[in-house]
Amino acid sequence: MADGFAATPEPPYYAVIFTSQRGPGDQGYEAMAKAMWELAHQQPGCLGAETARGADGLGITVAYFTDEASIGAWKQNGQHLSAQRFGKERWYSHYELRVAKVERAYSGPEGRRG
Amino acid sequence: MADGFAATPEPPYYAVIFTSQRGPGDQGYEAMAKAMWELAHQQPGCLGAETARGADGLGITVAYFTDEASIGAWKQNGQHLSAQRFGKERWYSHYELRVAKVERAYSGPEGRRG
Repeated sequence: MADGFAATPEPPYYAVIFTSQRGPGDQGYEAMAKAMWELAHQQPGCLGAETARGADGLGITVAYFTDEASIGAWKQNGQHLSAQRFGKERWYSHYELRVAKVERAYSGPEGRRG
Repeated sequence: MADGFAATPEPPYYAVIFTSQRGPGDQGYEAMAKAMWELAHQQPGCLGAETARGADGLGITVAYFTDEASIGAWKQNGQHLSAQRFGKERWYSHYELRVAKVERAYSGPEGRRG
């Protein structure tokens, strides 16, 4: 698997799609984002994550989980709850969070995976 | 709805999550990406899209559709098929494409949407 990609298994599994617009200034964001990235990956049921943020401050992070219960546990993680509070108060001018069940997946360019 | 976000309705609907690693050089990518972005939005059943690509060339684009049939029609669109071919041959060192059914959605920081 190439760097930056989550090595997810055959579907079905879940995706948490978090699209966010950063406001100006760091305000502790980078350090917390790095900590949350590492913490998410240690979370039971986490299959990996992918993230990208452009120069305009719009970013998309997709975290993959085995099931809904794992997503619920991650949402309620104490350190993550703190990060969510900072996100609402300081970091994001807007965000959209969508929970979706992955039904099919392909990879390339070497060929279809599924 | 803030710039850069898709104004999606209440779930359920579908998300096509496309994570890709760009190779070096433009090779016609930017012009085609812009054309495909516009074409996708004109596609019947397309609810909008969100995209971000970091300085490392890793990008995530999520396009939202009302149903599976609309995704199938977009996949088979003639201009899109050409773009897919260029993507495999020239632009992407790796990509992952996942089709997922959005079950729940929230927005913020002003509050939960659903």
